[in-house]
Amino acid sequence: MNAPRRAGGRRSKAGRTSTSLPQLPWQTLTNPYSPMEIAGPDAVEAIHRTSIRILSELGVRVIGASVLDLFSKAGAKVDRDTGLVRFDEELVNHALATVPSRTSLTPRNPARRVEIGGNSLCFGLVAGPPNVHDCVNGRRAGNLADYENFIRLAQYFNAIHLIGNQVTSPMELPANSRHLDTYLANLRLSELSFHVSAIGKGRVMDGINMMAIARGISREEMAHSPGVTTIISVNSPRLFDQEMGEGLIAMAEHGQPVSITPFTLMGAMTPVTLPAAMAQQNAEALFGVVLTQLVRPGAPVIYGAFTSNVDMKSGAPAFGTPENTKANLIAGQLARRYGLPYRTSNANASNAVDLQAAYETSMSTWGAVLGGGNLIYHAAGWLEGGLTASYEKLVLDIEILQNMIEILKPVDFSEAELGFDAIAAVPTGGHFFGTDHTIARYQSAFYEPLLSDWTNYGGWQAAGAKTALTRATEIWQRALVEYEEPALDPAIREELDAYVATRKEQIGTAEP
Amino acid sequence: MNAPRRAGGRRSKAGRTSTSLPQLPWQTLTNPYSPMEIAGPDAVEAIHRTSIRILSELGVRVIGASVLDLFSKAGAKVDRDTGLVRFDEELVNHALATVPSRTSLTPRNPARRVEIGGNSLCFGLVAGPPNVHDCVNGRRAGNLADYENFIRLAQYFNAIHLIGNQVTSPMELPANSRHLDTYLANLRLSELSFHVSAIGKGRVMDGINMMAIARGISREEMAHSPGVTTIISVNSPRLFDQEMGEGLIAMAEHGQPVSITPFTLMGAMTPVTLPAAMAQQNAEALFGVVLTQLVRPGAPVIYGAFTSNVDMKSGAPAFGTPENTKANLIAGQLARRYGLPYRTSNANASNAVDLQAAYETSMSTWGAVLGGGNLIYHAAGWLEGGLTASYEKLVLDIEILQNMIEILKPVDFSEAELGFDAIAAVPTGGHFFGTDHTIARYQSAFYEPLLSDWTNYGGWQAAGAKTALTRATEIWQRALVEYEEPALDPAIREELDAYVATRKEQIGTAEP
Repeated sequence: MNAPRRAGGRRSKAGRTSTSLPQLPWQTLTNPYSPMEIAGPDAVEAIHRTSIRILSELGVRVIGASVLDLFSKAGAKVDRDTGLVRFDEELVNHALATVPSRTSLTPRNPARRVEIGGNSLCFGLVAGPPNVHDCVNGRRAGNLADYENFIRLAQYFNAIHLIGNQVTSPMELPANSRHLDTYLANLRLSELSFHVSAIGKGRVMDGINMMAIARGISREEMAHSPGVTTIISVNSPRLFDQEMGEGLIAMAEHGQPVSITPFTLMGAMTPVTLPAAMAQQNAEALFGVVLTQLVRPGAPVIYGAFTSNVDMKSGAPAFGTPENTKANLIAGQLARRYGLPYRTSNANASNAVDLQAAYETSMSTWGAVLGGGNLIYHAAGWLEGGLTASYEKLVLDIEILQNMIEILKPVDFSEAELGFDAIAAVPTGGHFFGTDHTIARYQSAFYEPLLSDWTNYGGWQAAGAKTALTRATEIWQRALVEYEEPALDPAIREELDAYVATRKEQIGTAEP
Repeated sequence: MNAPRRAGGRRSKAGRTSTSLPQLPWQTLTNPYSPMEIAGPDAVEAIHRTSIRILSELGVRVIGASVLDLFSKAGAKVDRDTGLVRFDEELVNHALATVPSRTSLTPRNPARRVEIGGNSLCFGLVAGPPNVHDCVNGRRAGNLADYENFIRLAQYFNAIHLIGNQVTSPMELPANSRHLDTYLANLRLSELSFHVSAIGKGRVMDGINMMAIARGISREEMAHSPGVTTIISVNSPRLFDQEMGEGLIAMAEHGQPVSITPFTLMGAMTPVTLPAAMAQQNAEALFGVVLTQLVRPGAPVIYGAFTSNVDMKSGAPAFGTPENTKANLIAGQLARRYGLPYRTSNANASNAVDLQAAYETSMSTWGAVLGGGNLIYHAAGWLEGGLTASYEKLVLDIEILQNMIEILKPVDFSEAELGFDAIAAVPTGGHFFGTDHTIARYQSAFYEPLLSDWTNYGGWQAAGAKTALTRATEIWQRALVEYEEPALDPAIREELDAYVATRKEQIGTAEP
């Protein structure tokens, strides 16, 4: 009863042992259950109405003429002195009429395509941390070697569907061109879609161009089959900056989906109450949604939400809190009200890969999944409130995500599974270990964990009494040994290298 | 912004510092949200029909004449040679017609009364472990000193509503009378209702008698206002032993609620498939439910479920698995089909208070709560698959339970909470820290954690870089220092002591 399951779809290298870490096969996910709704229909409408009041009475301040021009042309009230843009519900409804209810991302390996919308679900690698940590080498500044290792792990672990924005910043590389190095690493070391940096148009276009090269298609073709995505943050409260505006415009023009995600910590960037935070976040998200449709009606756009709270004792951000979980649930209700795909997160605020990291992440993961999230961003590797990408946390998260994947697998209630005959075949007080019904199913009957150790106390002691944290270190180390670089057409590789070289020359010391 | 909240309702002893661990006040809980249903109505009926086939065609084997007599008298087919009892759906429906849909438990302090049924929710202390562990003193056999400490912690932490069966066995005391010592400790050191041992009638009656003494009421009065409860286990598959039968009869005769809980590990005590496990567990639970109504129509009874799976590599039990979580959800659907209160659990299989303990417990807690559980047994302190009561795990669990309590608190969507004026008062790009709206609410706006540390990395490092496990040790130690023994009328105390002394004499070396 102990043949380990092979990881799905991996070829073994000559001379390598064929054993592999147990993991679920690559799969796209759907959530078959009804989302959890904690706001009644009246409450959802009350939030919506408050958001519309914010947009029409208070407005959002925009830095950057191109965005102001678009709103002005669409009939919004634009104050060129203050940058304040105000508009009525009509413009929102006009935009919602052209927004697609779902989008997709197709990477260089089309088998790794993911859908975003409806009841689809996909998980993204942590994005943005300036630091890296593992239990062997400690905490250090982001660098390309660690960056590449995380991309290898994202490729290796089937539960990760998408590479987020810079899993860690390669700080030793020039800031104005390191996006090229990271895009190249994404395309060389993985087969997944990825997040392009939306800080200005140049970084966006480089991502789009390089994904198009990797897929062997034109930019025009990619406009009809998106391959990259990005997050458009809002500087809450109600401030939309120039670089994000340019990034949004470039993405929408080229048909690539953006998640409009106000990052709002209740008590700091929004009022301290959850309904007010939801109303403000919703107004800011709708503002971005409208903008995408002004750029290009029908441009794919995702309703993003990242509302949590601060620690009112210190002002520090907190994640994986009950308030964060409730916000994840209510934001899903709002996204569905507008017929938009929904991006959420499963963050935590722990400084170490410890109990807190595990229960806060579990809490926010349930909120994200029960909230009907289509894209769960930062789903693997997030530590220290997002300031560190952690190897051990990534392993912990893969286990949590795989558990969730199994929970979302519908149960087969056929007669054979109801097993009356199997029950009849075992005497009272007996056991089912050796029965035909068991033998026929035992290998795939239950989820086989990546990180959990279910041996009894004596066996666990005899094997060194390793805690899950120690085992997590062994797992990521083994995964990196077993990782295989996916094949890439040498001609494409050459074209990508040339693109990067040319662009670095063009950029020089300027901004891209 | 840093005045620590006082724990609800505690008086400070003279000379003691008035600070206290942050915790939620004592409260009874209701779950305002719809349960999660992962089996369709047809599937629920298919499970029900299979259960009825099990009861009518296969039967349950009973050891003990008194139970056989009751079934025989009620018209069931009773085979006196094999002990097999079989009956049709009619007898089930007859029993369900008299079962109350809810029950309650009133301890010596009536303010600690809990409701069990409908959308009520309460949490019980871990029950049954032979061992104890904490990070200071290590692992050891159960003993009265640790037993008493756990009762103090159950009294101290408001999230615990109920004392389960022997949080750890005081192994140094005689097995035939240690139940008296533990009941006395429960009544002296806490104000909570507790679980009596259902191994035979004697232990049950001692619990009922002692709770009646503590409440200053007669046994007859307590029959109308239950004060103790117990779990009736089934020796799955389909075996009902003599001592449990006698325990059930004694409880039902005296109007005290029992949870009928088949302990079924898929692949061992049931077939390997979840639907079969649910069908068998359901048949066994219904068997016990029917028995309670044969003893005394209208006797309170709770639908118990504890279905998880084994590790198919080793045969070891696993808890907090996706299968366990799904079983918790489906069992709730079955309990509601029959209009019965629902007892479930939030177990885990880890050997240490580590990441695994945290994510498995989080997983099973969500399953238990979303499943509509009314009584979540083993909710605090369970480690090593139930073989160890852990001090640090108890603290971890209190944090998880308190998070869940906060999530279940309905959100107020009034205009003041929607906060349009508060949003209007802060300029774009500003912050809400010092606004009137924030100041008026910040002290109670967010859940204040017991175990989570939200300081930033630098502050956390400077304070010793304590992981949550280290903090958990400090928390239970501090709780024991701050614990205050609740007042008990000296006359009642005397009567309880006398009862215990008399009973110990009566029991001698025999069984109680």
